Amino acid sequence: MNTSVDGDANGSTATAVVANGGGSISSVIPGWFSEISPMWPGEAHSLKVEKILFQGKSKYQDVMVFQSATYGKVLVLDGVIQLTERDECAYQEMISHLPLCSIPNPKKVLVIGGGDGGVLREVNRHSSVEHVDICEIDQMVVDVSKEYFPDVAVGYEDPRVTLHVGDGVAFLKAAQAGSYDAVIVDSSDPIGPAQELFEKPFFESVAKALRPGGVMCTQAESIWLHMDIIEGIVGNCRQIFGGSVNYAWTTVPTYPSGVIGFMLCSTEGPDVDFKNPINPIDEKEDHNTSTVPLKFYNREIHAAAFCLPSFAKKVIESKTEKL
Amino acid sequence: MNTSVDGDANGSTATAVVANGGGSISSVIPGWFSEISPMWPGEAHSLKVEKILFQGKSKYQDVMVFQSATYGKVLVLDGVIQLTERDECAYQEMISHLPLCSIPNPKKVLVIGGGDGGVLREVNRHSSVEHVDICEIDQMVVDVSKEYFPDVAVGYEDPRVTLHVGDGVAFLKAAQAGSYDAVIVDSSDPIGPAQELFEKPFFESVAKALRPGGVMCTQAESIWLHMDIIEGIVGNCRQIFGGSVNYAWTTVPTYPSGVIGFMLCSTEGPDVDFKNPINPIDEKEDHNTSTVPLKFYNREIHAAAFCLPSFAKKVIESKTEKL
Repeated sequence: MNTSVDGDANGSTATAVVANGGGSISSVIPGWFSEISPMWPGEAHSLKVEKILFQGKSKYQDVMVFQSATYGKVLVLDGVIQLTERDECAYQEMISHLPLCSIPNPKKVLVIGGGDGGVLREVNRHSSVEHVDICEIDQMVVDVSKEYFPDVAVGYEDPRVTLHVGDGVAFLKAAQAGSYDAVIVDSSDPIGPAQELFEKPFFESVAKALRPGGVMCTQAESIWLHMDIIEGIVGNCRQIFGGSVNYAWTTVPTYPSGVIGFMLCSTEGPDVDFKNPINPIDEKEDHNTSTVPLKFYNREIHAAAFCLPSFAKKVIESKTEKL
Repeated sequence: MNTSVDGDANGSTATAVVANGGGSISSVIPGWFSEISPMWPGEAHSLKVEKILFQGKSKYQDVMVFQSATYGKVLVLDGVIQLTERDECAYQEMISHLPLCSIPNPKKVLVIGGGDGGVLREVNRHSSVEHVDICEIDQMVVDVSKEYFPDVAVGYEDPRVTLHVGDGVAFLKAAQAGSYDAVIVDSSDPIGPAQELFEKPFFESVAKALRPGGVMCTQAESIWLHMDIIEGIVGNCRQIFGGSVNYAWTTVPTYPSGVIGFMLCSTEGPDVDFKNPINPIDEKEDHNTSTVPLKFYNREIHAAAFCLPSFAKKVIESKTEKL
């Protein structure tokens, strides 16, 4: 192999430049897609592009799908990689099973964002679940996922799922108080359409919509890049949630710095011990077997996800102590 | 912020192109360093370059140091990032304390590779250690580290350390049998000068040099990228080491796929339970305090490092079962 960033494109004719909402530019230089953002200054991850499959501009964001050389198909929103076929299992399985395996018999689940359907696919594995609402703001994300990522969007095919296209903040405000066992917030970064999903009023709406002892899991950035944002989220959640407040993380190679974190909180009510899952999906024989087996999640990696490097532990634990 | 991969270089004049031993090309395109290798085809991680501080060609490899925009100074060998000041703590602390915290009172330690001195810095924290041999093949790596990475190369300043510049394979063959409590192999990837360090005869030499119940920890690639290499290493080690054989991993943002793994083995003798450290450095008050506090390692993350995603667990456990 003999390539360079600006070398041969192996037949690809990709030369588009996509400006995103954050003011930065992601360039599809000939043959490669590079992810550059003020959210992670001074570094860029690039994937070799075989072919651009879709490019569109929705009411909310730029949407792109390309076939990469070694990570399968890739979904990009506003110049930022949302998922690749090769590593999406890590994110989808962890953001779903960390909360759902921590409570007994989850029945009613709300997903905010997650328009690609991957979180739905994972939620649907839980046979106790009776109803799943998903509120995704961007119909284009849903349509594109159904067309290009059938193994992810398969989550929509379960009859227990109801899709609501609209604003997650408004949906939660209108939700019946105490009606959900779990709320999973699968958002993009806190610049652009997802900004409100990292703010205090949103967390208050989530807490209100949950039953006593209900759980929230939200995408919560990288310990290597965003300790300031994480510190703020943890502090807000500690004020709002009367139960457990914990931070977990996992590895996702195509996310900046290679890790992504999750904020896990429970409302006042029956105790939730996130670090010791009581509802193990990986050993169940009775879950929905219409989907492929779990690739990433298991009981040990659930518990391990809450073990933090010292530099992160210090900051997060100072914010999670009960007031 | 408004940048692109081939945009303004903020005053940097870096335009060098470095060909590495593997036949690939890493380009320092204006303003950015990009890491491209046949070891991780189809993807590249790039860091913004402020200034190139050193470029040289030793007898063994290309050596480069640059000041990055957001990761501090960066050491590059044959076009591959070896360490950055921002995230080196994760690698150095884990590769050192995973083995040394798993045995009581390690006294004599051998480091193969690790010419930057970071592993030495961590080994030196253990007050039980009486002598540390380090065998690094490339004097230029030692010299460059001492000049540009004083907080890493500080490891050499401890009087317990003896540096041997030479071939690690030959050093081990000549070592007295049963003489070390721990051998730490801090190698580059298995293409180029480090190739032999991933092969069976080398592991046999390590096992011979260790006392009964002594431990080895070796850099063992990425579960996301190199399961085939890992499977081979684990299989070889299971045949050679009569005690425990375990695989652990951690997060290092500037390594390909954002993770790096470690192979941990013990020789026949007193049992070693790598997953439950018995010699906790993080709670000790008596360790050498000449260096900065631990940034990454703690007892919880030690145990968590052995919890593997299901896709890796399946392969690795099938190879670690005792024959």
